[in-house]
Amino acid sequence: MDINKQTLLSKINFPSDLRKLSLEDLPRLCQELRAFLIDELSRNPGHFASSLGVVELTVALHYVFNTPEDRIVWDVGHQAYGHKILTGRRDAFHTNRHLGGIKPFPSPQESEYDTSTCGHASVSISAALGMAVAAKKQGSDRHVIAVIGDGAMSGGLAFEGLNNAGTTPNNMLIILNDNNMSIDRAVGGMNSYLHHLHTSGTYNRFRNRAAHKLADWGWLTEKGKKRIIRLNNSIKSFIHNQHNMFEGIDIRYFGPQDGHDVISLVQTLRSIKEMSGPRLLHIHTEKGHGYKPAVEDPTTFHAPGKFDPETGERICNNATSDMPPRYQDVFGETLLEMARKNNRIVGVTPAMPTGCSMNIMMKEMPDRCFDVGIAEGHAVTFSAGMAKDGLIPVCNIYSSFAQRAYDNIIHDVAISRQHVVLCLDRAGIVGEDGPTHHGVFDLPSLRAIPNLTIVSPMNETELRRLMYTAIECQDGPFVIRYPRGNGVMPQWRCPLEAVEIGKGRLVSEAKASANAKPDTAILSLGPIGNTVQEAIAKISGSGEDTPLPAHFDMRFLKPLDTDIMAEVAEKYDHIITVEDGALNGGFGSAVLEWFADNGYTKRVTRLGIPDTFIEHGKPAELYRIIGLDTEGIAKAIQER
Amino acid sequence: MDINKQTLLSKINFPSDLRKLSLEDLPRLCQELRAFLIDELSRNPGHFASSLGVVELTVALHYVFNTPEDRIVWDVGHQAYGHKILTGRRDAFHTNRHLGGIKPFPSPQESEYDTSTCGHASVSISAALGMAVAAKKQGSDRHVIAVIGDGAMSGGLAFEGLNNAGTTPNNMLIILNDNNMSIDRAVGGMNSYLHHLHTSGTYNRFRNRAAHKLADWGWLTEKGKKRIIRLNNSIKSFIHNQHNMFEGIDIRYFGPQDGHDVISLVQTLRSIKEMSGPRLLHIHTEKGHGYKPAVEDPTTFHAPGKFDPETGERICNNATSDMPPRYQDVFGETLLEMARKNNRIVGVTPAMPTGCSMNIMMKEMPDRCFDVGIAEGHAVTFSAGMAKDGLIPVCNIYSSFAQRAYDNIIHDVAISRQHVVLCLDRAGIVGEDGPTHHGVFDLPSLRAIPNLTIVSPMNETELRRLMYTAIECQDGPFVIRYPRGNGVMPQWRCPLEAVEIGKGRLVSEAKASANAKPDTAILSLGPIGNTVQEAIAKISGSGEDTPLPAHFDMRFLKPLDTDIMAEVAEKYDHIITVEDGALNGGFGSAVLEWFADNGYTKRVTRLGIPDTFIEHGKPAELYRIIGLDTEGIAKAIQER
Repeated sequence: MDINKQTLLSKINFPSDLRKLSLEDLPRLCQELRAFLIDELSRNPGHFASSLGVVELTVALHYVFNTPEDRIVWDVGHQAYGHKILTGRRDAFHTNRHLGGIKPFPSPQESEYDTSTCGHASVSISAALGMAVAAKKQGSDRHVIAVIGDGAMSGGLAFEGLNNAGTTPNNMLIILNDNNMSIDRAVGGMNSYLHHLHTSGTYNRFRNRAAHKLADWGWLTEKGKKRIIRLNNSIKSFIHNQHNMFEGIDIRYFGPQDGHDVISLVQTLRSIKEMSGPRLLHIHTEKGHGYKPAVEDPTTFHAPGKFDPETGERICNNATSDMPPRYQDVFGETLLEMARKNNRIVGVTPAMPTGCSMNIMMKEMPDRCFDVGIAEGHAVTFSAGMAKDGLIPVCNIYSSFAQRAYDNIIHDVAISRQHVVLCLDRAGIVGEDGPTHHGVFDLPSLRAIPNLTIVSPMNETELRRLMYTAIECQDGPFVIRYPRGNGVMPQWRCPLEAVEIGKGRLVSEAKASANAKPDTAILSLGPIGNTVQEAIAKISGSGEDTPLPAHFDMRFLKPLDTDIMAEVAEKYDHIITVEDGALNGGFGSAVLEWFADNGYTKRVTRLGIPDTFIEHGKPAELYRIIGLDTEGIAKAIQER
Repeated sequence: MDINKQTLLSKINFPSDLRKLSLEDLPRLCQELRAFLIDELSRNPGHFASSLGVVELTVALHYVFNTPEDRIVWDVGHQAYGHKILTGRRDAFHTNRHLGGIKPFPSPQESEYDTSTCGHASVSISAALGMAVAAKKQGSDRHVIAVIGDGAMSGGLAFEGLNNAGTTPNNMLIILNDNNMSIDRAVGGMNSYLHHLHTSGTYNRFRNRAAHKLADWGWLTEKGKKRIIRLNNSIKSFIHNQHNMFEGIDIRYFGPQDGHDVISLVQTLRSIKEMSGPRLLHIHTEKGHGYKPAVEDPTTFHAPGKFDPETGERICNNATSDMPPRYQDVFGETLLEMARKNNRIVGVTPAMPTGCSMNIMMKEMPDRCFDVGIAEGHAVTFSAGMAKDGLIPVCNIYSSFAQRAYDNIIHDVAISRQHVVLCLDRAGIVGEDGPTHHGVFDLPSLRAIPNLTIVSPMNETELRRLMYTAIECQDGPFVIRYPRGNGVMPQWRCPLEAVEIGKGRLVSEAKASANAKPDTAILSLGPIGNTVQEAIAKISGSGEDTPLPAHFDMRFLKPLDTDIMAEVAEKYDHIITVEDGALNGGFGSAVLEWFADNGYTKRVTRLGIPDTFIEHGKPAELYRIIGLDTEGIAKAIQER
């Protein structure tokens, strides 16, 4: 967006510029920042409603605190677009999430204003506590502020951080940004607890004013404060029949307060800024605030894609019925189809019913789907408990978030062989969300765990058949990983049939050229097999007289198809493995192990994700860069 | 123990026998059960003080509830010895933790009375909630009871479970066994919160009696109950200035009550048994109760080894100064030694200061060590925050518990290359604690993560040098994994010198025999290299005229020593890799990958942990079974 040179925003390159404004200017700045966000995001898609909701908070924080010397730790960086715009990245903001452009989430590698990696939820309190302790240990009077949403508060890590903050000496300020939302809706007891805290407006207004006054009068000595806190708690509990768990664990509580009144936010932050000890300010905001379509449908406007900034109408690609479906919808539709026939099937999702399309089942069978909130570990252990007593839980977690359930998968599912069907959505390269979201560590980390069956379907019908196999034909843990976005098959509603465990399939046969026999077999795992097919087609259509490799879709990472392995070991000199996961210890590595363990010394070329964090960009761009596009694979075949 | 046929205990083979006793008999049974535990554990070491503390609870639960139809879910099974003895395993109890004997922790594979795997803390609420939901979905009126200690309540998973329990329809009963302990001491705000809940004795006695009466009178209708809860909360908060977070998140709270009064426990359990909705009964117990030495030193008596049941004197092996030290003590002493010279070094442990010997530093520098409670994820993210702002955190976690911090290692440490030194204690086979505690998945799961340096020292001086290298010579994440127990070097206080990153070392050269050149090189990682040396010595001393292999201690899993790799690739036909971790994707796999990626087709034999959960037993017994003892390795060399 070409920014109007008359605006306040145009003059703010860094927070130091912001701090030159008068307090009265701030509402106007917020308005401009919001307009900038709406305009920019309508054309350049990204996370939207979260950042709109914290415009005033963002301005107030950078106004009151001396960033970057003071540290703001954002919990889940999709709320931090305003922060980026105010911290030197306004003019580059149109490159947000683009290949080579500014990063999707705050990153210490990008800006000194970004204090921690924040792609995953519930991290901020722990990270900020570390910084607050470091400040104290080094005699610095730096302020450290964690900003966490109520959705993220359901994550166990946030609780671990809170629990520890109450007893470790620190001066951290936690801002609880309460908008009654995670991406879908916030759930769980904590959320309803916070909701009750809300309703107590009168008392809280009284209390806020009193706190301001006492601070102004210099009455808030340590001893005085403790006495006041105790008195406060009693009065509050008595009048409003409420309990404040934060003060229960020795964190001083302020609020709730309107998070869209920037002037009063600044005043509150100023008044509690210099207090010592851990504090929590509870503010109430509206996701999408200031943009009606987003307020009315914050789930859609969490990340709406392009839209008309005037009307809020989303500009969709014209999807037609002969477009392949999204894997998510194949999952959701298939799950519902099977759940209708087998009432032991239940669904579990940690806060992603819309993202993973479990909402399709949820709509028809709300009692058989469990959105457990941002709580991946619990999602898995809870599933294990249900499996133990006869239900068949289908637990859907994004691959990169399932890293949080690694121990639960080992300890609660694999050891006792519980029949939990774990569906890992967003496997492989996810694109613009970048390194925190790519689902590339699942294959190596899970392959090490005994008792797991692990598959990755190559396409939509394979996903359906493998879901059927996992749910109806297996009595132990089963992991199905598949990518974000569209598949390859417009006609995907195949009959639900079982796949034999540990059996891959031949996708295309090897073909001799006029002068040479084929010497290469390609073993692929998952949807990257479609790119392998394109690569073979490309070579085949190139007019060159080269032999074509055999191509097997292995389906199963574990157990490997030993028949195919033995066949390729006997028939081919050169094996190429292709996977959309980390090469270290992944599928190609499993192939190497099998050859070594069975006495074969084969030439093996492994294609996959190299040992580096892959940055953000379109999946096609990223796959090209790492040689996992059609050209890259074709080249690897021809260089054999 | 030959059980006296006159005792009540001798007549109880299963809980159904227990339920035939009169209420008045229960105190005597508890006494007998406690005596049995003391006698048995004094001779056959295991976890001790925890089980003593829950004798009355165990008896009361099996007395009131219809186990195994009703489900008891123990959180951390080291408290469940009494449970085992009452559920068909009394006469086999002397085999507890022995190879082939009964399992160290409850296991559904061993007994229908054991409902979930419970080697790791904080799991019970989530697992029990799953079972409670399954019961409800299937129209069963089965009762489900989770028993969780206050130490385990600091784990995020417990909070995720609680949070979800408040809003998911279920009739679960949570018993909060509050003994102010985890293994060392319970820490964190939650613990001090619970401690405050305690002090309110008068009110709670009143309340318990009132609840009993109301239940007796049939007045506890759903509506009535809610009204009473609200009234209760108000009165309680007003009188005692307290806040009950459990009721805040919609879990009905009862207690606290004396957990050693078995008759009143039975009465309470009976009165709340048939209530609906999630409930929590808070009981107060004493770890080691009824055995004075254990009460006085519960940390030592958590797992005391053999002791004199009369005096409590521990029967130690006569350790002499020429015994090799435990790796733990080398870690602890070296950490203190370095911390004295560099005040940026801080220590972090999730509830294991004694176990990992960080207590050595803690004693001298309490302000520079952080016991964050059972909260592995937080320990890592908190460390990352401190590293971000200039401290050098040395975070020590048992390898199998670090599975809970997998995402934190990726997201908060590796992506932004924070200088966190992660020490993974209890790596490899740990022995009697069995499959939940073996630290065998760290190598494959961590190897997949970019930016990590990962080492495993072969002995004590290597541990010291690698700690020095990690702390003083590196500016990024560094993982050091080492085993439980004694090393191999009585003289271990070497100078602290740096090791070059990615450099292994030749331990012993290859040697030709009269008739044959050596064709084999052994690459080992970690202390298993000492067993390799023994195997080579065994072959060498066997009198047979065979060539001896070269032996390299690789030190670094990542980065691999490419010089050694190139050397062995050129000089040897056969490579044997040896590691004390999972073979799937581990060190041997990294070696295979290097050969494949660098165009070598070598014959490689991989020795390590096979793809199965290894049961419990002495480490030497288990290593023998999987062929990782001297004989197994020697055989692999000779079969080359």
